[in-house]
Amino acid sequence: MITTSASPTPPCKLALIGGDLRQMVTAKTLAAEGYEVAVYAMDTYAGDWGSVTRAADLASAVGGADLVILPLPVTQDEERLHCPLTRHTVLLTEVFDALKPGQRVTGGKVSAHVHALAANHGITVTDYLQREELAVANAVPTAEGALAIAMAEVPYTIHGARCLVLGYGRVAKALAKTLTAVGANVTVAARKPEDLAWIDANGQIPLPFSALTQGDTPLNYDIVFNTVPEQIIGANLLSRLPCDVLLLDLASAPGGFDHDWAKQHGYHVIWALSLPGKTAPVTAGRIISDSIRYMLNEEVSP
Amino acid sequence: MITTSASPTPPCKLALIGGDLRQMVTAKTLAAEGYEVAVYAMDTYAGDWGSVTRAADLASAVGGADLVILPLPVTQDEERLHCPLTRHTVLLTEVFDALKPGQRVTGGKVSAHVHALAANHGITVTDYLQREELAVANAVPTAEGALAIAMAEVPYTIHGARCLVLGYGRVAKALAKTLTAVGANVTVAARKPEDLAWIDANGQIPLPFSALTQGDTPLNYDIVFNTVPEQIIGANLLSRLPCDVLLLDLASAPGGFDHDWAKQHGYHVIWALSLPGKTAPVTAGRIISDSIRYMLNEEVSP
Amino acid sequence: MITTSASPTPPCKLALIGGDLRQMVTAKTLAAEGYEVAVYAMDTYAGDWGSVTRAADLASAVGGADLVILPLPVTQDEERLHCPLTRHTVLLTEVFDALKPGQRVTGGKVSAHVHALAANHGITVTDYLQREELAVANAVPTAEGALAIAMAEVPYTIHGARCLVLGYGRVAKALAKTLTAVGANVTVAARKPEDLAWIDANGQIPLPFSALTQGDTPLNYDIVFNTVPEQIIGANLLSRLPCDVLLLDLASAPGGFDHDWAKQHGYHVIWALSLPGKTAPVTAGRIISDSIRYMLNEEVSP
Amino acid sequence: MITTSASPTPPCKLALIGGDLRQMVTAKTLAAEGYEVAVYAMDTYAGDWGSVTRAADLASAVGGADLVILPLPVTQDEERLHCPLTRHTVLLTEVFDALKPGQRVTGGKVSAHVHALAANHGITVTDYLQREELAVANAVPTAEGALAIAMAEVPYTIHGARCLVLGYGRVAKALAKTLTAVGANVTVAARKPEDLAWIDANGQIPLPFSALTQGDTPLNYDIVFNTVPEQIIGANLLSRLPCDVLLLDLASAPGGFDHDWAKQHGYHVIWALSLPGKTAPVTAGRIISDSIRYMLNEEVSP
Repeated sequence: MITTSASPTPPCKLALIGGDLRQMVTAKTLAAEGYEVAVYAMDTYAGDWGSVTRAADLASAVGGADLVILPLPVTQDEERLHCPLTRHTVLLTEVFDALKPGQRVTGGKVSAHVHALAANHGITVTDYLQREELAVANAVPTAEGALAIAMAEVPYTIHGARCLVLGYGRVAKALAKTLTAVGANVTVAARKPEDLAWIDANGQIPLPFSALTQGDTPLNYDIVFNTVPEQIIGANLLSRLPCDVLLLDLASAPGGFDHDWAKQHGYHVIWALSLPGKTAPVTAGRIISDSIRYMLNEEVSP
Repeated sequence: MITTSASPTPPCKLALIGGDLRQMVTAKTLAAEGYEVAVYAMDTYAGDWGSVTRAADLASAVGGADLVILPLPVTQDEERLHCPLTRHTVLLTEVFDALKPGQRVTGGKVSAHVHALAANHGITVTDYLQREELAVANAVPTAEGALAIAMAEVPYTIHGARCLVLGYGRVAKALAKTLTAVGANVTVAARKPEDLAWIDANGQIPLPFSALTQGDTPLNYDIVFNTVPEQIIGANLLSRLPCDVLLLDLASAPGGFDHDWAKQHGYHVIWALSLPGKTAPVTAGRIISDSIRYMLNEEVSP
Repeated sequence: MITTSASPTPPCKLALIGGDLRQMVTAKTLAAEGYEVAVYAMDTYAGDWGSVTRAADLASAVGGADLVILPLPVTQDEERLHCPLTRHTVLLTEVFDALKPGQRVTGGKVSAHVHALAANHGITVTDYLQREELAVANAVPTAEGALAIAMAEVPYTIHGARCLVLGYGRVAKALAKTLTAVGANVTVAARKPEDLAWIDANGQIPLPFSALTQGDTPLNYDIVFNTVPEQIIGANLLSRLPCDVLLLDLASAPGGFDHDWAKQHGYHVIWALSLPGKTAPVTAGRIISDSIRYMLNEEVSP
Repeated sequence: MITTSASPTPPCKLALIGGDLRQMVTAKTLAAEGYEVAVYAMDTYAGDWGSVTRAADLASAVGGADLVILPLPVTQDEERLHCPLTRHTVLLTEVFDALKPGQRVTGGKVSAHVHALAANHGITVTDYLQREELAVANAVPTAEGALAIAMAEVPYTIHGARCLVLGYGRVAKALAKTLTAVGANVTVAARKPEDLAWIDANGQIPLPFSALTQGDTPLNYDIVFNTVPEQIIGANLLSRLPCDVLLLDLASAPGGFDHDWAKQHGYHVIWALSLPGKTAPVTAGRIISDSIRYMLNEEVSP
């Protein structure tokens, strides 16, 4: 985690409404740093509350809050707030009704519907999931989650396994580093010459995409991790891999493997999404708190 | 895996009787290197058999074999061979009856009872599990298995986690290296000055055992991995750890934590044994084949 | 080094005129890959020439060449070609006179004067030093060169040394990775939140620039490596460092330290520029050959 | 460096007589930890003295000292103390004359002559250079020194270089780790199966010595580091290496390369000894202070 500033914490009031363990960790982390933090709709949380205040109702939670933090995702069905830590139902409109027009609000994975609803109430909701530093930080739990899945699925060690990583964005960079660190033999396929140069500099084997897709030679990899959200791995490539390869897709829809073809032909495919929240919710919550702090500092020192 | 020699493979006949996936991988690996390999009591194995021969009966499997390889463990109840890959029961005495006195035999985790039974038949069974290079090689799957358990159990990333490793034998060395590689903050507690020097040289924080056991300061670790088969972590140490610490014991009986005390006081304790066979049986099988090859070379070139 | 493509090498003729060992290595590397390579003005090179052709004169070297490769830097004094491997003087205008207007030419660190001279001859000279993949690849020899200087200058090991890296561009990324790898305790100061997230992900201690420049606390670092070409480290920061700190400036003019102040006050400052050519000319030549190959492939497959 | 104990420092008086920068660092490090430290014959040292006392004469330095620490090496010519930090000559017999019979004395690289001289005075001198934890700790500066030499000597980066390390003792282990860390392609040749297993576990390529010495295939390495003090690399092996290989011998006499043959045939051979004292005297001094502390604790708690 990152200590972002030597500067004193501004006298700031934060309200966190709903959300899962991540949201609770965000609340506790920020409270521990001296922010005044009130939460609502998290009443069944059984752990230690630290210096977080449980608000009696929505109005007292958000009243006077410098920033209102909605969950990730904001809703479960576009209408009801995502709030698994309470037994009550909270409608998103209830929350917006309780806010003052112009009050500062953020949330994770904000849909077009949520944006529209907010606009009706004179509210703008920023999406913290679109912040670059949060996406970078999330690459670490994603890479660890992918490693954990691979370890659980294959009957051999990752040490010495021949791994192919497709793409060289944030997740691929973190994943390639982690796999290399545990002793895998890692090849990374990328398009840009500068990415290939980084791959070499970072101790993996660079493979131009063109060299991967051309030809019909066998591709002797034990595990293929895809990070590119484009259907790049179809029948031609798949059929050149060993039949007992593990295909692990980390890319959002439509994914990178031709999942239908792969399943029909008996390949072992796993599509793993949203790993930080699933495998490391505490870390995910801390990462969100880092971004909230950045947001607040940006406000304070424009 | 290790290519042990540039020398030509001796014209050797090997018999593998019973065993699980590890034994099958050992058979296939050695067959692929040119050894003449016959197996018995593995008939339900559904994978690719490579150039391994299925013997019709025990006698034809072991007849003329330069080395007979028993499973790991040799028996399930001291009498019946450990042979989960067949539906038949094979008694260990049947195997010994089929052998010639003086025929060369090895197996894994050979009990006193097995040694005695063998002696009655004029047979000496060496235990490949006691070979140092096999124990070293097994430290890697053990460390990976421990990492996988830790990843599955804790709600945060190992990257950034504060890990304490107790002991600095084979498993501890491999584990400390792996944890450091994935970005954990690793402290290793050891007794010998030279071990503390190695710990520092290898990039972990050395902690003399005396400094760990003395005093009453809190021990701020997220995960404690024990590798020492002695009850070294009792009430005094445990009560100085955070209540949500993960205690992962990798040591054989009696283990290193006071498991009873820890459970009574609500600690999260996991005792994980025989990880190579459980989490990476293919690697475990290859490691056994490495040791078999060493054994055969030692015979050939004394 | 990077094998950039599985595609066949185009039937290409290359001419390399002048240059130092790097240029010779570029010539040999490309010749070894099947390119037809002629060189001129490198006649005193005493090593193995491989399949490189020594042209008798400029005209025969460049005649029909698909690409003419000038040295790095192109000239030593804006007029005479940089050609330390010959005893002759070659004027840049001689070279341009020998070329056909429109002939494809590249070179390293092409000055405005060289561009103007080329334009007079109807020639466009691209600068391979401005290619991103070359700059990335050069970060590795730069980082190693910096490590070598640090090792030679300080009376303690880099293992365990407290190092501060300023900036997080290409060189800083490679340097931070290398220092961490040899066991240094590495802090990296950067401005952007996403850079701080990468620094944490990559196992170094992230330090916001603002936290570095504010306050008056002592800065306990043994070595400070600057990579930012801006005067960011003046009297205030320098005076908070230990008096025996090593200051190693890797940034081009004006550098990042206030060199005058530092020297006047007895600090140990080293300003190291153009490290790849100085400490690893063979690697630098291979990196140039990688970029030449990319250039040629871009031409062929637009 | 290692904090060896949570226990309080015994009220101990130490005398350090003669020696170079290492001895001075040892004195300062121990004084900073609360030991009462007097030095003699180091009067020209121009750096900061910390809380070290300069004794006026030998008698006052050693009088009442719980441990007298002689330099490394003890003498320059068996008679005169190794004391480059003074302009005076100090005879070893003078030192022994000033001691009480039975007083505790240690030193580095104690020769048979020094032992005999001491015995004449009723003194036993232990040799701290023979302590295992000191030898382990010294492997780090030795490995860094070897890396620094290699970097300075070869015209390419160590990243990507094909390195062969001979032996797998302390120095070889530290060196293989360091070379791997900076991105070299590292093969380690060893004899024992368990060493080969460790080499694989640690991410290097294991090569059995027998495979190295048999056959007549070319050995494509850029740099060969020897750590074995036996003439194992003679004409047969050398002639299979590339003519521009760098041979770096780290082994004490007689070294591991056939130096005469290598030089006669134009190979580039460097024999680098006593690297810690040469390349990292401050670290070497701290390592000695660690061992002194261990010695003192052993005395106190037998």
